[in-house]
Amino acid sequence: MGTRRLVVVGGEIDGVMAAEKAARENPELDIKILLPGKFFSLKGYLSSYFIQNPDKDIYSFMSRIRDRLKEQYNVEILPCRKVTDIVSLEKKVVFENLLEGYQSSLEFDKLIIATGAKTVIPPVEGIEAGNVFFLDTLDDICSIREGIDAGLFKKAVVIGTTLAGINAANSLWSRGIEITMVEREEQILDGFDVEIADLVRKQMEQKGVEILVNEKVLSLICNAREQVVEVHTPNYILTTDMVIWMEDVKPDIDVAKKAGVVIGKAGAIEVDQYMETNIPDIYAIGNCVERISKITGNPSWEYNMFVDKRAVQVLGYNVAHDNGLALSKGITGAASIQAFDLNISKAGLSSVQAEQQGYGAETAVACVSDSKHGYGDGFQENVIKLVVNKTDQKILGVQCLGGILSEKVLDVIATVISMGGTVNDLSRLDLVDHLPYITDMHPVCLVTDMITEKLAGKFQGISAYELCEILDDPQVVVLDVRTRSETAMGMLPGAINIPLNELEERIDQLDKRKRIVLVSKRGRRAYIGYMKLKQLGFEDLKVLDGGLSAYPY
Amino acid sequence: MGTRRLVVVGGEIDGVMAAEKAARENPELDIKILLPGKFFSLKGYLSSYFIQNPDKDIYSFMSRIRDRLKEQYNVEILPCRKVTDIVSLEKKVVFENLLEGYQSSLEFDKLIIATGAKTVIPPVEGIEAGNVFFLDTLDDICSIREGIDAGLFKKAVVIGTTLAGINAANSLWSRGIEITMVEREEQILDGFDVEIADLVRKQMEQKGVEILVNEKVLSLICNAREQVVEVHTPNYILTTDMVIWMEDVKPDIDVAKKAGVVIGKAGAIEVDQYMETNIPDIYAIGNCVERISKITGNPSWEYNMFVDKRAVQVLGYNVAHDNGLALSKGITGAASIQAFDLNISKAGLSSVQAEQQGYGAETAVACVSDSKHGYGDGFQENVIKLVVNKTDQKILGVQCLGGILSEKVLDVIATVISMGGTVNDLSRLDLVDHLPYITDMHPVCLVTDMITEKLAGKFQGISAYELCEILDDPQVVVLDVRTRSETAMGMLPGAINIPLNELEERIDQLDKRKRIVLVSKRGRRAYIGYMKLKQLGFEDLKVLDGGLSAYPY
Repeated sequence: MGTRRLVVVGGEIDGVMAAEKAARENPELDIKILLPGKFFSLKGYLSSYFIQNPDKDIYSFMSRIRDRLKEQYNVEILPCRKVTDIVSLEKKVVFENLLEGYQSSLEFDKLIIATGAKTVIPPVEGIEAGNVFFLDTLDDICSIREGIDAGLFKKAVVIGTTLAGINAANSLWSRGIEITMVEREEQILDGFDVEIADLVRKQMEQKGVEILVNEKVLSLICNAREQVVEVHTPNYILTTDMVIWMEDVKPDIDVAKKAGVVIGKAGAIEVDQYMETNIPDIYAIGNCVERISKITGNPSWEYNMFVDKRAVQVLGYNVAHDNGLALSKGITGAASIQAFDLNISKAGLSSVQAEQQGYGAETAVACVSDSKHGYGDGFQENVIKLVVNKTDQKILGVQCLGGILSEKVLDVIATVISMGGTVNDLSRLDLVDHLPYITDMHPVCLVTDMITEKLAGKFQGISAYELCEILDDPQVVVLDVRTRSETAMGMLPGAINIPLNELEERIDQLDKRKRIVLVSKRGRRAYIGYMKLKQLGFEDLKVLDGGLSAYPY
Repeated sequence: MGTRRLVVVGGEIDGVMAAEKAARENPELDIKILLPGKFFSLKGYLSSYFIQNPDKDIYSFMSRIRDRLKEQYNVEILPCRKVTDIVSLEKKVVFENLLEGYQSSLEFDKLIIATGAKTVIPPVEGIEAGNVFFLDTLDDICSIREGIDAGLFKKAVVIGTTLAGINAANSLWSRGIEITMVEREEQILDGFDVEIADLVRKQMEQKGVEILVNEKVLSLICNAREQVVEVHTPNYILTTDMVIWMEDVKPDIDVAKKAGVVIGKAGAIEVDQYMETNIPDIYAIGNCVERISKITGNPSWEYNMFVDKRAVQVLGYNVAHDNGLALSKGITGAASIQAFDLNISKAGLSSVQAEQQGYGAETAVACVSDSKHGYGDGFQENVIKLVVNKTDQKILGVQCLGGILSEKVLDVIATVISMGGTVNDLSRLDLVDHLPYITDMHPVCLVTDMITEKLAGKFQGISAYELCEILDDPQVVVLDVRTRSETAMGMLPGAINIPLNELEERIDQLDKRKRIVLVSKRGRRAYIGYMKLKQLGFEDLKVLDGGLSAYPY
């Protein structure tokens, strides 16, 4: 038996990285990478990174990887090889050489499929125009960078408001481009709870981004040079210099499917814990693969804009050594971006997703500021929403917005989710903090205490969105317990103000027959007020989750 | 039965906070706090905070707490009441009123002991001088602030180099004071591993702090106004304007012991998970209490410079509601300070502590920089040392130095320790990162991979300290595999340079009979070189843990 041959099919960078890891593990491997295009494809995060940082040389980044693979590991990278067939029985890959126009084939001992994801190109007029970008190729990124540098792109329309879409919009915005985002659904940021998504929306709008929801793109109108100049939706005509299309990104599984590789319930390639498909010696990685949710145990697929470095390590090891390294069966789907001066992150399920999956979910929202927690003076509010299962109190998910603190909280709670932890586990952590304000608690403790009290039935919350929906209801009283000077800056429509320390003496101003929703800046005083009113015989009480700091409306 | 009476003995702020929590839980409580001094005592972190931030009004901070307790919860705070006896059978506390000079007593239903810790005042000449501070009273802090403001304190000697000592030194240094630190042991930062402690020492020295080790203070020489002007040690005479004494801080358990409260093996009050002592209805909190180590299961006591907010919540609840809320049985002892532009943090055991406790410990050191991980451009190197048990691969501890990243890593690993996790659990986390450099991994993954390979026997490391000790050994070759341009900036004494990509062709320059220690900037290239040499038949190989970035010597 000769040298073991590893072939990588597809240009997603995860596959390239796995090949490098394999080469490091076993320098004897004969590795060939068949790229469909001229270069590896870039994932969402990297694309945005290179748009945002014009001083970073994207060619040298790409060629550094290529050269390192070639020089250090003798990995051959063959560009413009479009794979048409994987013949698993003969262990051979058939491809077209697009450069020279012939068909050829390669035999393999181990194969990695890394075809990634692709945008489902919609049948929309103008979609083929030169200034419509899908951000998946080096050419796209370079054209955008050149267009910005040349002053040609001053306005952009970004279609789709996923985390990747928002990240792309941010990269343009940070270069001074005027942005309109178009979302066909009612809510931006699918997968986040509505009031969290609306906080992001509010932040983006404050940064000057125009956001249109419930708008589907009907056509892209081009000028004589075949450049889109207008985006038409049912209610708007948006003039623009360029379009980024981030809707309907799906796993690219055509070649795999044709080869007989099993496609799982989530619509992507099914792999075992070694990242091997149903066909021995054929592995898959990246966005063409589905993963198992740590929480539900079900397969799931979401576009991952980051390189899955853990999977890279595991797969690289396994193709070099005949398996042996197992990937964690479940993932929490932790993801985080820094966009529009806000960290936006999530792990596990949102409250809506939890309900959809059949869980009875309880939630708590904590608001804390970075500056109070020793992270410099730049005041940044952090909003943390925890979702747990009512029955067994397992942590189902967390959504965080804010500064550095929010990202730290995310990693801690994702760790607990990953280990299958419960509220009890969360409550037993001792974490570092250096809070000068001794009455402030670590945000993880804070949100844990809140959910503990809710689960024990001690108080009930109402989400910002739910409150917004019932503000007009005459049976609902919004009771703002902040001080007079705080409320002078503004109150919710129809709210009445009784500062917390006057609550008892002014109790006769409240009607016991009505539902009273208590609000304060971050919800803590509202909670204290709630307890006072409960003691005084009030029954239909709610606290606004997270307080007005987390109220986007 | 009348109103339930809660008495708090001792002035540590944890007890005061627990009383506030109890009042919030049960507004019917009749609460009295007997302070030995005029105000609550401040813990190390707060003392340093107020020295460091002269614009923060310490009186208003203290009186805000006092007023809130009084006004919102009707808690009576009685200053200058020195408790002489707790008569548990009669449920009564006997105290002297130092203001008016009479003895009196108070009956209680529930009692909280919060006597905190105190410095064992050594029989050193001059220790009573007015400019020797123990940082435990408001008067101390105010005198220091006034002295600095008046320009009287330009030089300070800080005795003791614990985390609290370094934090105190930092607060003076940040006010422009010239600092000498004196440590009687050979190493600073007791409880950290020596090479980590030495990295801290190096950083402090670079910031202009003079650090003397192996020096015991012999006497403090005063001037005519009874102010210390010189600190004498066996080898030095240090002129100074003030002294901060941070050595030999012990739990203050005199009153508790006299009352028959059980003192545990670690020398502090033993409490159960409800924070109740052996005597029913007598509870304890803060630095007078010992805790159980999550890792060893043994009682332990270390001075905690932070308020234990979790304990505050639990104890407050339990005295209000007859227990019911249990504190985590074990703690990891996570602690973190920001000093001398460095985050210094630790959870669990150091490698030395692990060996002392009978574990066979394996360690790994990862070095990563903040700037590569999306935390701004201010380059900050992070050093992460993980300690695990070889037999069951449980995580025993972690020490982190660096920027914000290091603190985030600490919280994640402390979470895994707290949940009793292993290397396997660590390897299965999916954590958020937004690393533009795709070959860089999340530092938690990086250190986990390293320890996994070490545990599998794939390579062996050597600590910076161990290497430093054998640099002169002729049987040891230090092989620096960095590029020529990197080594031009300096190499370890006696090291030879063969850049990684020349290793194979220059293999005959290496002697197989000698021990070869491979070094690189952060250890990654050294690891690759190690694997190459191993393949080529070299046997006695080591990689410098963490690389030269983590080498303090």
